[in-house]
Amino acid sequence: MEKPYAIGIDIGGTNSVFGVVDKRGHIINQDSIKTGVYKEINEYVDNLSAGVQKIIDQVGGASNIKGIGVGAPNGNFFTGCIEFAANLPWKGVIPLAQMLSDKLNVPVALTNDANAAAIGEMTYGAARGMKDFIVITLGTGVGSGIVVNGQLVYGHDGFAGELGHTTTYRDGRLCGCGRKGCLETYSSATGVARTAREFLETKSGPSLLREFKPEDITSKDVYDAAVQGDALAKDIFDFTGKVLGESFADFVSFSSPEAIILFGGLTKSGKYIFDPIRKYMEANLLPIYRNKIKLLMSELKESDAAVLGASALGWEVKDY
Amino acid sequence: MEKPYAIGIDIGGTNSVFGVVDKRGHIINQDSIKTGVYKEINEYVDNLSAGVQKIIDQVGGASNIKGIGVGAPNGNFFTGCIEFAANLPWKGVIPLAQMLSDKLNVPVALTNDANAAAIGEMTYGAARGMKDFIVITLGTGVGSGIVVNGQLVYGHDGFAGELGHTTTYRDGRLCGCGRKGCLETYSSATGVARTAREFLETKSGPSLLREFKPEDITSKDVYDAAVQGDALAKDIFDFTGKVLGESFADFVSFSSPEAIILFGGLTKSGKYIFDPIRKYMEANLLPIYRNKIKLLMSELKESDAAVLGASALGWEVKDY
Repeated sequence: MEKPYAIGIDIGGTNSVFGVVDKRGHIINQDSIKTGVYKEINEYVDNLSAGVQKIIDQVGGASNIKGIGVGAPNGNFFTGCIEFAANLPWKGVIPLAQMLSDKLNVPVALTNDANAAAIGEMTYGAARGMKDFIVITLGTGVGSGIVVNGQLVYGHDGFAGELGHTTTYRDGRLCGCGRKGCLETYSSATGVARTAREFLETKSGPSLLREFKPEDITSKDVYDAAVQGDALAKDIFDFTGKVLGESFADFVSFSSPEAIILFGGLTKSGKYIFDPIRKYMEANLLPIYRNKIKLLMSELKESDAAVLGASALGWEVKDY
Repeated sequence: MEKPYAIGIDIGGTNSVFGVVDKRGHIINQDSIKTGVYKEINEYVDNLSAGVQKIIDQVGGASNIKGIGVGAPNGNFFTGCIEFAANLPWKGVIPLAQMLSDKLNVPVALTNDANAAAIGEMTYGAARGMKDFIVITLGTGVGSGIVVNGQLVYGHDGFAGELGHTTTYRDGRLCGCGRKGCLETYSSATGVARTAREFLETKSGPSLLREFKPEDITSKDVYDAAVQGDALAKDIFDFTGKVLGESFADFVSFSSPEAIILFGGLTKSGKYIFDPIRKYMEANLLPIYRNKIKLLMSELKESDAAVLGASALGWEVKDY
């Protein structure tokens, strides 16, 4: 009999959330542990495994589990390792897939968060039935998961799909990666806040955003101001959408996807970010691509998306 | 018994070259007809088919032919059609694969020239054994064929891989596609000549290139000058390599290929173009990709490459 469940584990800097998911994308049960408190990886794996074992037992044990999928920062699908993740407590290369499968006796596959999101959209979300699409995650950073011919693009080393680090402006804003002008520095939630500070300095005219200390402004504040009709806030979203739309036009020249799907915190800004992206993408597309690339929002409920995405990988596990 | 031969047909604006190729990439026999003289597509197909039939008969007839692969400008793999090719005499959508297979009773697959080059490199050339690589063709224009997970990237519509039309400089040089700043306007053979004219105007100092009428300068002249130690000519190649290297760094963020393989006329400039590309690509790569992406020259003999590339598609034909 086919095993009815997969496990999804989403590892973030603060929390590690895990759940049992059925084939239709329903989370049957779910739990979490704190990530940051475990300075020692073995201690973390012991506690994570204990938590996951508990939810496995609740659905009748490991014989009902097809596989475990893990989404983690800098997760490498090919090696099953977390490699040099800046915002996790453990340094170097962590063979997490191996460690978990040793503990739980269930095969484990691991990838990075954006790839997990892409598999999640393909399995349960906006990309069901699509063979060629790109998921762009707009959060604190900008990530991407690219699907070509129905398969995730991992590249020769497992590190493909770093579209947040394609260069938007040569010698532009300094990025956390050490380079300059990366898409992420303009179009992440942090990038929007950076644009706000820049525009407040270089542009005149009244704005609700002038009531904030510049260093405290968040993308949420910009959204709230835009909703109230603030012109500067709308300019900030227009600029962000321009940067994203121009970049998307280049991504289309690469893989000509059926759709580009937006995912993550910044998408809560809805039409304020969506409309300019669509406008500038269309204006910059090579003629053969115009009016045929869909721009879509994620269809996964945000609180569930990370676990669902990771679990989708659990259906396709291979042993390490 | 397995059929021992495939046919490759390379359709260019001037000539259409076709040959019988064996599994090891040897061209057994070869012929050509003029493309441009046939203003009417049926007349062209009649003459092309007659020529191809002749070389088929020379190797014992259609029962010895696995399939026919065609490389053509704007060739769409999914539809088997040439769609709106600017430099061919026939307008609109030409169902060439169907027309040829009706005449010759052999299955025909069709794609664009750069994709054919990529399949050629994978089957017979520098990409043998690779599952992830990108071929960049540097000729009159700039084309690309992208292979991911061992499969050519066609995209949802058959038009993926137009990397020559990714934007290098916003509001840069006007491109034949109607947009501005495309990679092709800087790094094709034509783009190099354009840079030469620009540098001759904007830079001072002596140069062998000043002896030419600016409008007559070709990339070959720039190469000849560079070989003689001309500083301006070397600057032109350095700039071209910078544009390409920076773009390649972005392409790597997409598919993390094992190698980028250069193909086409401009590669005859050897180290003058190769060294700056490598330098600027490495300098612009995200750290995780540094020192692991190979930059290679095509291993296909140039006069044979187009036919070999097209024939490689002939091994994998499907019927239309």
